[in-house]
Amino acid sequence: MARRNAFYAQSGGVTAVINASAAGVIETARRHRTRIGKVYAGRNGIIGARTEDLIDTGKESPAAIRALKHTPAGAFGSCRYKLKGLEESRAQYERLIEVFRAHDIGYFFYNGGNDSADTCLKVSQIAEKLGYPLQAIHVPKTVDNDLAVTDNCPGFGSVAKYVATSMREAAFDVASMAKTSTKLFVLEVMGRHAGWITAAVGMADDADTPIPLVLLFPEIAFDEAAFLAQVDAKIRAHGYCCVGVSEGLSNAGGGLLAEAGTKDAFGHAQLGGVGPLIAKLCKDRLGAKYHWAVADYLQRAARHLASKTDVEQSYAVGRAAVEMALAGGNAVMPAIARVADRPYRWKIVEAPLASVANVEKKLPRDFISRDGYGITQKARAYLAPLMKGEAPPPYKDGLPRYVRLKNVAVPRKLASDFKV
Amino acid sequence: MARRNAFYAQSGGVTAVINASAAGVIETARRHRTRIGKVYAGRNGIIGARTEDLIDTGKESPAAIRALKHTPAGAFGSCRYKLKGLEESRAQYERLIEVFRAHDIGYFFYNGGNDSADTCLKVSQIAEKLGYPLQAIHVPKTVDNDLAVTDNCPGFGSVAKYVATSMREAAFDVASMAKTSTKLFVLEVMGRHAGWITAAVGMADDADTPIPLVLLFPEIAFDEAAFLAQVDAKIRAHGYCCVGVSEGLSNAGGGLLAEAGTKDAFGHAQLGGVGPLIAKLCKDRLGAKYHWAVADYLQRAARHLASKTDVEQSYAVGRAAVEMALAGGNAVMPAIARVADRPYRWKIVEAPLASVANVEKKLPRDFISRDGYGITQKARAYLAPLMKGEAPPPYKDGLPRYVRLKNVAVPRKLASDFKV
Repeated sequence: MARRNAFYAQSGGVTAVINASAAGVIETARRHRTRIGKVYAGRNGIIGARTEDLIDTGKESPAAIRALKHTPAGAFGSCRYKLKGLEESRAQYERLIEVFRAHDIGYFFYNGGNDSADTCLKVSQIAEKLGYPLQAIHVPKTVDNDLAVTDNCPGFGSVAKYVATSMREAAFDVASMAKTSTKLFVLEVMGRHAGWITAAVGMADDADTPIPLVLLFPEIAFDEAAFLAQVDAKIRAHGYCCVGVSEGLSNAGGGLLAEAGTKDAFGHAQLGGVGPLIAKLCKDRLGAKYHWAVADYLQRAARHLASKTDVEQSYAVGRAAVEMALAGGNAVMPAIARVADRPYRWKIVEAPLASVANVEKKLPRDFISRDGYGITQKARAYLAPLMKGEAPPPYKDGLPRYVRLKNVAVPRKLASDFKV
Repeated sequence: MARRNAFYAQSGGVTAVINASAAGVIETARRHRTRIGKVYAGRNGIIGARTEDLIDTGKESPAAIRALKHTPAGAFGSCRYKLKGLEESRAQYERLIEVFRAHDIGYFFYNGGNDSADTCLKVSQIAEKLGYPLQAIHVPKTVDNDLAVTDNCPGFGSVAKYVATSMREAAFDVASMAKTSTKLFVLEVMGRHAGWITAAVGMADDADTPIPLVLLFPEIAFDEAAFLAQVDAKIRAHGYCCVGVSEGLSNAGGGLLAEAGTKDAFGHAQLGGVGPLIAKLCKDRLGAKYHWAVADYLQRAARHLASKTDVEQSYAVGRAAVEMALAGGNAVMPAIARVADRPYRWKIVEAPLASVANVEKKLPRDFISRDGYGITQKARAYLAPLMKGEAPPPYKDGLPRYVRLKNVAVPRKLASDFKV
């Protein structure tokens, strides 16, 4: 079989471990040099393909690629840029194929969430229509854990570990202060429509370390009176209360409680601010002295507290993507299948992209306690193994040492300039 | 010499390592059983002494006390409660002595910041006036690092490590997203009047990992136009900009930029919200898409990322406090003296409380760069060793395992009930 080049790009919000997937792709490709020539990365994601701004990952040392395993965020740059339907955006898809053809790209690895899975599928379709031989493989990634088919998403386990740890630590702090000061602590977490991260906050509380905790899921319409009753009861019983709230908390009408007002390129509202809003509400209605935290990017970039399971799975989906491509796969995604809970065992399976693209997997109702403010044993059994194990980065002078790649550009081959 | 009991209490905002000081006090006292009988802790700080709500630390196993070294926050509860002048609050000071007399307390260890140092000094003075033999030793603690005489405060090094790590990680995230999305990231940090924590954010940026960073110190009056010019220049040059802002940022008139409006028991305003305010300002004036985070309690409770140096020093001041008491010290505080920067060496020295009480040590101007938005090499040389080394807690099922003590109450000896 002819040797062809590969293209890899990172898409959407980055995670603490997406670079581990990049390492999985690149290191595996390097072990198959007879089949895969160069691995080019898109500078700032798919935009790099459209503008023919490719990065030659071959210029990076083995040590630098290895260091991606412990470096957060997107080493080649990501982007929020959504391609529309095949007919609507035909010129753009054709441009991608033009660039791929110019650089003899035979393998397209796209590392992202459900929007990206859709783009990956469409790239595969347009290539086929145009008679351009291409194998398009989606590499799953999203802190929101809302991808279909896969049991969990690389990126989620580390955020889960971060928010649960942070809430546990903050709860110890509040408990210390509650006698004369702070009685309420509110932590706002990510997860627009799906409450997976909110559920992970619930893991802060366990049999060894009970914490009076109230969770506000995006799947459960906010009921002010019922919520305040929960908080009030917990403060009365324990002297303090902790609240984990999803940025996407909505009222019964479906309206977001807090919206910054701006929208991203996908048309999603940019959220933030429901944490302080909830804290203020408790202060006004219950008189509770409060503190609040909004972790924002800190939660998804916290490579220092990554889950070992998550790092391993992130690498594994990158490696599997290359192996699937070499085995002839196209329009597929390596998904994680859970074999057993205790002890946790998992394997990689091949999922057709059509079943993943644009589908949003919400938190099942039976993961949420009947009253709507906590998690069930079923949720705990699901979440626990994903957060398990530590995989700290190397430290230098007290700080994590993360790698920055050289990101050397591939010489352009196309004369035409393409406007993004 | 007669064997007498000891009283230990935690005061004010807790830290990731104040319990390591408690361990230092208790373990050292246990090694001197011929001189120190029981170690009683105040439940919720000094309030526990006034209400005769004492905890018998002798009921805790050696393993539990050892576990305090890796457990954040105040294991016995803290409080925000300030005693006023000796004459003004004479009845309250006399009540303390009454309780101490009832329980044969000969040693008073008070673990707090500069307000607490003042209280500790006054307790020593009233005991002397009343002819009650007592040795009052202050054990330094504060994330703000604003205590006088001591080179640095236990608690600060860990917050410094946390905010620098968090900013570095977030900067990697923003750099990934900047092409099409977030161009500005704002992290709000603690430090009401002193910019030590803000300066620590500056450590995220170093020769290995340059980051376009702008710092807003509480010591430097906010100049909107000059600040926006800084941010604008960095976004133009690097595609993105990170901002570390102190909760206590003030304008030229000395007014706080953001104030929650409530005040704590010391009359300090409860702050929070300058981070989003600064982010919004940049959006409105520069059009920069932004994200912001307010770490709040997360930064001071983050035992999972504690500095090893800080843990060791926290333990050491606890141990030294007991040793100073046994050597006859009174109205003193074990302070940390820096012997050398590179390699870092430090020792404990005895500081008279009168030189510590109520003095606030601000960030020296020569730690701040000339333009007011960064840190100098002098600041780096000071900060680096304090953040150095990792001291992770034990993990169980993916989460830090922190200890909760039994906190068994000591039977009351006084009939009279005292109203706080």
